[in-house]
Amino acid sequence: MNVLVVNCGSSSLKYQLLDMATERELAKGLFEKIGDQDAMFTHKRPDAEKLERVEPILNHKEALKILLDILVDAEYGVISSMDEIDAVGHRVVHGAEKFADSVLITPAVMDALNECAVIAPLHNPPNIQGIEACQAIMPNVPQVAVFDTAFHQTMPPEAYLYGLPYEAYADWGIRRYGFHGTSHKYVAQRCAELMGKHMSDLRIITCHLGNGSSLAAIKGGRSIDTSMGFTPLSGLIMGTRSGDIDPAIIPFLMDKTGMNYQEIDSMLNKRSGVLGISGVSNDFRVIEEAASKGHKRAQLALNMFHHKVRRVIGSFAAVMGGVDAIVFTAGIGENGIGNRDEICNGLEYLGTRLDTERNNCRGVEREISVEGSKVKIFVIPTNEEIMIARDTQRITATLIGK
Amino acid sequence: MNVLVVNCGSSSLKYQLLDMATERELAKGLFEKIGDQDAMFTHKRPDAEKLERVEPILNHKEALKILLDILVDAEYGVISSMDEIDAVGHRVVHGAEKFADSVLITPAVMDALNECAVIAPLHNPPNIQGIEACQAIMPNVPQVAVFDTAFHQTMPPEAYLYGLPYEAYADWGIRRYGFHGTSHKYVAQRCAELMGKHMSDLRIITCHLGNGSSLAAIKGGRSIDTSMGFTPLSGLIMGTRSGDIDPAIIPFLMDKTGMNYQEIDSMLNKRSGVLGISGVSNDFRVIEEAASKGHKRAQLALNMFHHKVRRVIGSFAAVMGGVDAIVFTAGIGENGIGNRDEICNGLEYLGTRLDTERNNCRGVEREISVEGSKVKIFVIPTNEEIMIARDTQRITATLIGK
Repeated sequence: MNVLVVNCGSSSLKYQLLDMATERELAKGLFEKIGDQDAMFTHKRPDAEKLERVEPILNHKEALKILLDILVDAEYGVISSMDEIDAVGHRVVHGAEKFADSVLITPAVMDALNECAVIAPLHNPPNIQGIEACQAIMPNVPQVAVFDTAFHQTMPPEAYLYGLPYEAYADWGIRRYGFHGTSHKYVAQRCAELMGKHMSDLRIITCHLGNGSSLAAIKGGRSIDTSMGFTPLSGLIMGTRSGDIDPAIIPFLMDKTGMNYQEIDSMLNKRSGVLGISGVSNDFRVIEEAASKGHKRAQLALNMFHHKVRRVIGSFAAVMGGVDAIVFTAGIGENGIGNRDEICNGLEYLGTRLDTERNNCRGVEREISVEGSKVKIFVIPTNEEIMIARDTQRITATLIGK
Repeated sequence: MNVLVVNCGSSSLKYQLLDMATERELAKGLFEKIGDQDAMFTHKRPDAEKLERVEPILNHKEALKILLDILVDAEYGVISSMDEIDAVGHRVVHGAEKFADSVLITPAVMDALNECAVIAPLHNPPNIQGIEACQAIMPNVPQVAVFDTAFHQTMPPEAYLYGLPYEAYADWGIRRYGFHGTSHKYVAQRCAELMGKHMSDLRIITCHLGNGSSLAAIKGGRSIDTSMGFTPLSGLIMGTRSGDIDPAIIPFLMDKTGMNYQEIDSMLNKRSGVLGISGVSNDFRVIEEAASKGHKRAQLALNMFHHKVRRVIGSFAAVMGGVDAIVFTAGIGENGIGNRDEICNGLEYLGTRLDTERNNCRGVEREISVEGSKVKIFVIPTNEEIMIARDTQRITATLIGK
């Protein structure tokens, strides 16, 4: 079975085609600046020249048409006809409380996705556009939605509720949902495999650290707490996002500055985080470079990031009554040698012992704690695509008889 | 030296007169509903009948006049003339970054207090009124301001800054200040005394749990992290306050409900917390009673409170690289047997072992961990008045030659 994995942003479309017999990647690529005259299209097959094009692409449907043409193209293609795409798996950001697992897309599911878009106005609409484009072009291919929120639906109410009037939850769905669920689940599974244990016997803290960052507390294979909340704005300090702040700051700023709530929202999402603190960049590599040259606010931004990740690791140890393994993943988690070192510095009371030599690695799957460390520490590159493809295969297998 | 300790709220005035030679309380009392026709006045001396009166009291100055009359009253008094009040210590909520210690009140200090009121519009103005009333009535008695925020001024920037644009701090003073500092400092000092150790050798987590609640991480005698932030709204879920929420919830609610920022602020401060969740009360005893009869949302409110306190304890252990003692204080901390039990349940990985027998106590100073527990757990009734009086004595001693 071949599965096409699709991840649509507001002006982007990321894809990967996988042969599920071997879980081998056949091709992958990316459309950027969709809607522009100079939209960019990159297509890549393993061990082959990359295709890069700049051309006008009106919308996601048009991007998808281009993609399907390329996949069967004589020169750049990897399949001989569209019939070789057996199913499509879509990343969907927000499944609210409606979806605790991936789901076959039906008209009823589409209605539910549109309802979820109310609480994820930035994220779900482009996901929905991508699904509709696929339905239009490949009407007979089964499609599956895989949610960023689904894995965290196992959180207990004391973890997912805010201290707001109960009606905020009952009437408006305001609760902690958590995100990056597909990534947290993947690396937790890999962690158990690497340890030669069952997930059911482990307490794992997964640190997905990228431009957006979140941690999850995974006990017995279930997410029981996570640092992001109602939206991906909250929790840790991130590239451009503030993370948690005293909520009283918002009325205070509106009163003093005259900003309206849209302006506040934009400030918190786009001009805050390590960018806002450092004044340099939202890119950790640039901030580290500046800090190494003595830029004080760049160093401060890094210190804040490490402090807050350490705080959340500590709180999740408390939530699980201890911890057996800590996993680092995503851009900073996989590549940030210094970041991992700083974060782990002071966590020895938990039973962790980072191995400085082993930690000197980027983007590889590896244990980075010393031999015999009571709590294991791992770097595990995330792979959301493979998780989406596996769920898509599981859900469509009986349907298509493969 | 006799010190009068004064704590003014918007419509209240709490006082205590202490003989500092023995640190003995001579009298204490409370004015409530100041500004009303039926304001209430309660005056109490140790081992004597309580005085209770209901009468019109216009303002804090008038309350103070009544108080001074009573203190020298033939029947209810404890001193023979006002000259026996050597100094007055005032509790002041917010000292911002201007005050890292208690201070003798001068005209320059009054200016600074008024500047601090910009970021504490609910709390500082009544404190300032109380000081001005004392200055008017007892112009020759030295007065000292003791701040809720001062003890936390030792926090490092990575702990006190939010992930906002740096200008929010530089231009508006938006940072984490922390509160209940006088209480955290008192119980941490007592904890060290009870352990027969120096503060400098200890890592203590102090849990001030009342209608307003905060935790502090105290390492080597210095507060290096605390759960409250810019205002006392943030951190834990409290009686009527939300504590931390995803900041994106505020723009979302304003957009969906049409509430303005004052209405949001009021909701977060007055209708949230365990009151908002339980729908029953902001009083933990009432909530516990309801929960014991099967009220689900009352039980949920308790579970949320315990979960969030446990999370913060865990995060502060991470911040300090471990913990030597945990202290419970204030209304719930001193009296909540079940609350302490629930909070400690699952913290054994830190080295804590709660003694269920010892924990069966209210309002007494006691170790409640088992003999030999690696991490000690204490109940220590707080005493902010004695701390205010000691600081007042320390700062005015040379001035008045006593």
